[in-house]
Amino acid sequence: MGMRPPEEEHPVKAFGWAARDPSGILSPFNFSRRETGEEDVRVKILYCGICHSDLHNVKNERGTAKYPMVPGHEMVGEVIEVGNKVGKFEVGDKAGVGVIIGSCGTCHYCTKDLENYCPKCMLTYNSTHYDGTRNYGGYSDVIVVNEHFVYRIPDNLPLDAAAPLLCAGITTYSPLRHYGLDKPGLSIGVVGLGGLGHMAVKFAKAFGAKVTVISRSPSKKKEAIEGLGADLFLISSDANEMQAAVGTLDGIIDTISAVHSLMPLIGLLKIDGKLVLLGSPKVLELPVMPMLGGRKLVGGSGIGGVKETQEMLDFCSKHNITSDIEVIPIDYVNSAMERLEKADVKYRFVIDVGSTLKTA
Amino acid sequence: MGMRPPEEEHPVKAFGWAARDPSGILSPFNFSRRETGEEDVRVKILYCGICHSDLHNVKNERGTAKYPMVPGHEMVGEVIEVGNKVGKFEVGDKAGVGVIIGSCGTCHYCTKDLENYCPKCMLTYNSTHYDGTRNYGGYSDVIVVNEHFVYRIPDNLPLDAAAPLLCAGITTYSPLRHYGLDKPGLSIGVVGLGGLGHMAVKFAKAFGAKVTVISRSPSKKKEAIEGLGADLFLISSDANEMQAAVGTLDGIIDTISAVHSLMPLIGLLKIDGKLVLLGSPKVLELPVMPMLGGRKLVGGSGIGGVKETQEMLDFCSKHNITSDIEVIPIDYVNSAMERLEKADVKYRFVIDVGSTLKTA
Repeated sequence: MGMRPPEEEHPVKAFGWAARDPSGILSPFNFSRRETGEEDVRVKILYCGICHSDLHNVKNERGTAKYPMVPGHEMVGEVIEVGNKVGKFEVGDKAGVGVIIGSCGTCHYCTKDLENYCPKCMLTYNSTHYDGTRNYGGYSDVIVVNEHFVYRIPDNLPLDAAAPLLCAGITTYSPLRHYGLDKPGLSIGVVGLGGLGHMAVKFAKAFGAKVTVISRSPSKKKEAIEGLGADLFLISSDANEMQAAVGTLDGIIDTISAVHSLMPLIGLLKIDGKLVLLGSPKVLELPVMPMLGGRKLVGGSGIGGVKETQEMLDFCSKHNITSDIEVIPIDYVNSAMERLEKADVKYRFVIDVGSTLKTA
Repeated sequence: MGMRPPEEEHPVKAFGWAARDPSGILSPFNFSRRETGEEDVRVKILYCGICHSDLHNVKNERGTAKYPMVPGHEMVGEVIEVGNKVGKFEVGDKAGVGVIIGSCGTCHYCTKDLENYCPKCMLTYNSTHYDGTRNYGGYSDVIVVNEHFVYRIPDNLPLDAAAPLLCAGITTYSPLRHYGLDKPGLSIGVVGLGGLGHMAVKFAKAFGAKVTVISRSPSKKKEAIEGLGADLFLISSDANEMQAAVGTLDGIIDTISAVHSLMPLIGLLKIDGKLVLLGSPKVLELPVMPMLGGRKLVGGSGIGGVKETQEMLDFCSKHNITSDIEVIPIDYVNSAMERLEKADVKYRFVIDVGSTLKTA
């Protein structure tokens, strides 16, 4: 960790909003960014999504928080400076930064475009840089990142609604691909209709699946079917509906972070069906017999590699996919966090950093 | 269910040992078998393995027992009669019968050689035949089975040691294949060194894996390495050994039927590692975060289809693989069940039906 105060760690002044303690309350924060190195891209941040993990992190719910913490790992903006070895970007390009900003580059996973699983993978914020300084996220005016971890944002995507693709997008796209749930004609279930879930519906539809949204809230039926294009809607508490759907799904994307029962979900799967967990309850009860009898699997997945993230963005460009968002000014961020905790957002808050973040 | 007593359900007399109640104690039993139909093969049973599920079933531990019950689904013997449409067998051929003896033949799974996952799949014993009569297993003198569910036993395999291949063999072979754990050079863990576990070690070695046996019992180290050819042995209660092996395995075959902790096993897996459950505890605790962070999966599997079972037998022929067995006379079967309950067998009891089963 850097020995100097945040505003003196690096030569270039930066400004953002930071949490100072486990209350999670964010407030204006002066810090600094490094000079643009040879392979670095300096991005002026225009929009940054509020990911549910930002909420976990600012409140130290995972026990790993270090304060002050500038959250944010779903940012898009404009390239304002490039190092002299940078090949992918020029000043003025639209660019995005996601959940990771570094990896070792040489391990088995890095060489297979799975930087996200590199043991030395560096998170965008609430982490320490290889140089010993702290990393601060996208609720800020500017960021400097090695070009390998900066993405091209396709021209036809609106910048604000594209921001959540950098985390919510790749987190749902990657497992649909990896677990073979991207084939036309499959029946795919999506559990939980939030930031991740609504992206899973959009990707599954774009892959050609018949999509069933499974939710506790009957009130979400209309938005799932009319708003997001889901084909079917199952109320998880309706035993008759659930029973009628037993054995109908090839795969399920489960985005629920609270403890919940896997038994009914495993029951919805066909033989060889796959239940992919993206939420992060600590422990879930796993019913074993139905997995044996149906050769079913329960798998995990965490974001995606750099190559696949760019592929996802290009796929979004082709299929006109972005997140459904509510754009907010930076000074609404604490209220937004409160509403996010109650799942009161359709479906992602995005901070208009470019227009509303003013140096204190 | 048949309305008539077991010895009158069918025209042909048969004799075996049956459990009569949840004590699970087996005793001589007169019943009957059907005439050999056009597509049927009549097999004189010579050897039958004692599967751990026989123990569960005779004691009604799954709540599905119907008495009298003749257990046994790992049988080999000699063809003594064939129906006039039978093409696969002639009188005098060596033949085997396993866990299933029927399926619908027309569903999605049957047409993909996955009869074991057919919704109408018929188990070899403790089940009702499509014709309404009861099915009795291999602790008996003879069985009549549709030829599709009868396997050729390769000439070079000793019949007694081949019997357990029909369940323990295919139950371990199939998931190694299905989950891609059959590639040379992989590191494979096997948890539990019993009837299933010792077969998993043999198959994994034959596929070219480096095999690690994970066990609670230090006493099994010598037999695992010297007897079965495992490369490494981990004592699951030794925290230092387990810690040193974190992230080293591509896949684990977990054969434990008791409730146990999955966390240390998931920890042993590399990124993208696969934990395959073959035992049947009702519920296990699933730690979610390590699955997300390592894109790991937990999968189930149950026996295998007909085509794959024959493929497994031919693979065993080529690689000289059979089960390590203790051959017993039929009148030792109740003692064997008691010893099996204490895991006191290396590694499978096989009943010498041909020489020791005498009509009462």
